[in-house]
Amino acid sequence: MDAVTPTKYDPRSFEALTFHDATPAFRDGSDTPRDYLERCLETIAEREPVVQAFPALNAEGARAAADASTARWKDGCPLSRIDGLPIGIKDLLETKDMPTQMGCAAYAGNFPKRDNAAVWALREAGAVIVAKTVTAELGGSHPGPTTNPFDPARTPGGSSSGSAAAVAARMLPAAIGSQVGGSIIRPAAFCGNVALKPSQGGINRGERMATSMSTHGPHAGCIEDMWQVAIEIANRAGGDRGYPGLVGPATTPKAARPNRLLVLEGDGWKILDAASKAAFETLLDRLADAGVEILRRSDNPSYEALEAAVEGAGGVCSAITGWENRWAQRNLVNENPDGVSARTQATLAKAEAMTPDDYRAALLARDRAQMAHARVAPFADAMISLSCPGPAPLMPRDEPGKPLAPRPTGDAIFNYPSSMLFAPAVTMPLLGVGGLPVGAQVIGQQGDDARMTAIARWILETIEPVVVD
Amino acid sequence: MDAVTPTKYDPRSFEALTFHDATPAFRDGSDTPRDYLERCLETIAEREPVVQAFPALNAEGARAAADASTARWKDGCPLSRIDGLPIGIKDLLETKDMPTQMGCAAYAGNFPKRDNAAVWALREAGAVIVAKTVTAELGGSHPGPTTNPFDPARTPGGSSSGSAAAVAARMLPAAIGSQVGGSIIRPAAFCGNVALKPSQGGINRGERMATSMSTHGPHAGCIEDMWQVAIEIANRAGGDRGYPGLVGPATTPKAARPNRLLVLEGDGWKILDAASKAAFETLLDRLADAGVEILRRSDNPSYEALEAAVEGAGGVCSAITGWENRWAQRNLVNENPDGVSARTQATLAKAEAMTPDDYRAALLARDRAQMAHARVAPFADAMISLSCPGPAPLMPRDEPGKPLAPRPTGDAIFNYPSSMLFAPAVTMPLLGVGGLPVGAQVIGQQGDDARMTAIARWILETIEPVVVD
Repeated sequence: MDAVTPTKYDPRSFEALTFHDATPAFRDGSDTPRDYLERCLETIAEREPVVQAFPALNAEGARAAADASTARWKDGCPLSRIDGLPIGIKDLLETKDMPTQMGCAAYAGNFPKRDNAAVWALREAGAVIVAKTVTAELGGSHPGPTTNPFDPARTPGGSSSGSAAAVAARMLPAAIGSQVGGSIIRPAAFCGNVALKPSQGGINRGERMATSMSTHGPHAGCIEDMWQVAIEIANRAGGDRGYPGLVGPATTPKAARPNRLLVLEGDGWKILDAASKAAFETLLDRLADAGVEILRRSDNPSYEALEAAVEGAGGVCSAITGWENRWAQRNLVNENPDGVSARTQATLAKAEAMTPDDYRAALLARDRAQMAHARVAPFADAMISLSCPGPAPLMPRDEPGKPLAPRPTGDAIFNYPSSMLFAPAVTMPLLGVGGLPVGAQVIGQQGDDARMTAIARWILETIEPVVVD
Repeated sequence: MDAVTPTKYDPRSFEALTFHDATPAFRDGSDTPRDYLERCLETIAEREPVVQAFPALNAEGARAAADASTARWKDGCPLSRIDGLPIGIKDLLETKDMPTQMGCAAYAGNFPKRDNAAVWALREAGAVIVAKTVTAELGGSHPGPTTNPFDPARTPGGSSSGSAAAVAARMLPAAIGSQVGGSIIRPAAFCGNVALKPSQGGINRGERMATSMSTHGPHAGCIEDMWQVAIEIANRAGGDRGYPGLVGPATTPKAARPNRLLVLEGDGWKILDAASKAAFETLLDRLADAGVEILRRSDNPSYEALEAAVEGAGGVCSAITGWENRWAQRNLVNENPDGVSARTQATLAKAEAMTPDDYRAALLARDRAQMAHARVAPFADAMISLSCPGPAPLMPRDEPGKPLAPRPTGDAIFNYPSSMLFAPAVTMPLLGVGGLPVGAQVIGQQGDDARMTAIARWILETIEPVVVD
């Protein structure tokens, strides 16, 4: 194990890398965006050999952007509050100055030389695009090389593996991830990030729309940077086509104590380990002690109806995503039979067995779950749930002749509900279990991204994180 | 003018090329898909030099596909009712065996070697992919070389210029077009086609989603081929991601007389020439004589409310489309400054002056119009309207140093409402004005594609077309 790899994660003492609190020094000249970047590059030099978060890194381009930012801050005219913020971009999103290889051999060397809408918006806001971050193949579950910064034998989660790990290793203060089933919230939770999975359509995905339930969202070391990155993008590039996009204040919403939080169990509750469950229950006790009423599924028939509607959410999400990706993936495999993993090809085969009516049935299940979710709005300010089923698992190895290892980037079982509900979710690094991070999340009604951020901010500022062995 | 160009169009006597009535002879062996294709290729040899509908043509690939189809019909095992149907594909949709150049110099030679989902579905159904059809640049308004088959000095309409012209010239019995504002219905109306602009999301657009209000739809010589092409695609590839897709019977819906049709005037009524208005009023009289109650805007406040909600539809559609395309187009122009027309670059400049709130305002206008449309559902079986403001105009020429000619593919003013309403529209070649085709359309509630097809079929079978000088 690398000497600089922390041996035990403690959410009470871990100091994440933050940016918003560095900018006052940019104004008074005691620090500069260029110096901030150089510190990041030093950390990258230390940690990247083991963490392996970056399939591409553009140090010279980043330095030029940081110098331009330094000049703007010196002149008192930054482009935004994130001017100079070094950021990583998940390798599914196109960047004009780095290749976009999507964790897929078929895309090796792919270099379209254009910026995704969110990347364009980040540059307009003065952010410094430093690197592409590893994605599981095509945003699915076939893992890339990234390791968990708190234990290199474990997965960082996926598919936004590199984004989560880059922030956790303090190599960057923020990175863009994307989620279809559980690809932002799960890796963020395994890596101790704060992260936002926005309401469906919240952040412009640009030309490559992927599926009807994917979103772009920021990983960050703190909630201030998380929100600021999200709103600076949305204020320039808006949301997805057809959606109003993320709406909220120009700076991070003020902390707001929720009156009532509804515990969402979902399918994950049934497979949860005892230590993580105990840690989560302690967290709920602390919230109750702080004056938050905790609602449980048995308290009201509408809560039970919501639980029933999200039962099997993983299957619904997988069916919808598989169907929607099948033509693009079939074309890719036909052109590159050896360029796509067996794991992704198995997913494709399942999708190709579907009929239009199978797809329609999955859409209906999603619609019903969204209606059941809307029904609980009057009762609860938000839902609360774990963000992952315990700490990041050890990375399995696929062995020739044996069945493929299931879920090599961990289980998204706690993430399918918010994806299916098109609901905003903010994960918070509130738990340490066995010396590893475990996240908890608040989940809101569609469009409630700012309110979820305010609630998460209050929890992060008020509730002591829980540590169990 | 070419000798084979008809000099005067008469909707009562024009014989469009049809396919559904050819298949009985495939079964008994008196005709074959290969022979049908060869007849198309002969017509193409005659007409294409003037009509110029095809930027790419794959005669050998089509012959091989037609031979395979011939064998299937001979064995009594066709893959579908459109097995052997020769079809053209708008050059915005990718085809694995022909380039996809989108009418744009920046895409010259672009050959991604993959099939769009709808193209894939057509091949699965046994259809014979013959050619790509000319699109106005990037599906916008900058015209390609195609001429109107009934007068080569006039536009065929756009952006599905080649699809409409190929069917009108009897070169192909059907072709796939696409519409954002008026790109299926307008050229079909200028060219005397039958065509379906499906409900938003009705036919799978595949990976390249374009905008939140674009659809793929068939042009055809008759309503039977129109429906059959649409449903064979939808039954294999479904609708757009997130949409249930086109639903309806496996063969063309039976003709159904509507009880009440509501005349939708829209902004087009104000600019309509007297001859076309008179022809349309005569058509309405004939419908009334056949027992259809004709509703006019002043009959009910909810009709006036709908007219008010679609006032300025063109501006709303253009704002939405411009915003949604801006990142892709900016990247394209940056990479290819000389590869995109001044007309398209002017559209981009307008979009780049928009803010997220401008876009949200346009979405709200679209939402309000859809609500106003739903309010008339109890009163009318469908709306009826012209499909274009009179016959196809003469093609303008852009002259250096002068402002760009406005609307070189004609005015989509009668098409923006159905696009904005996400409503299915079927255009019918019911009018001849000054020796040129003018279409009329029925427009339904979202999802009513099959019912609109049934109503259009009844009108086509029952009402004598109107001819005026």
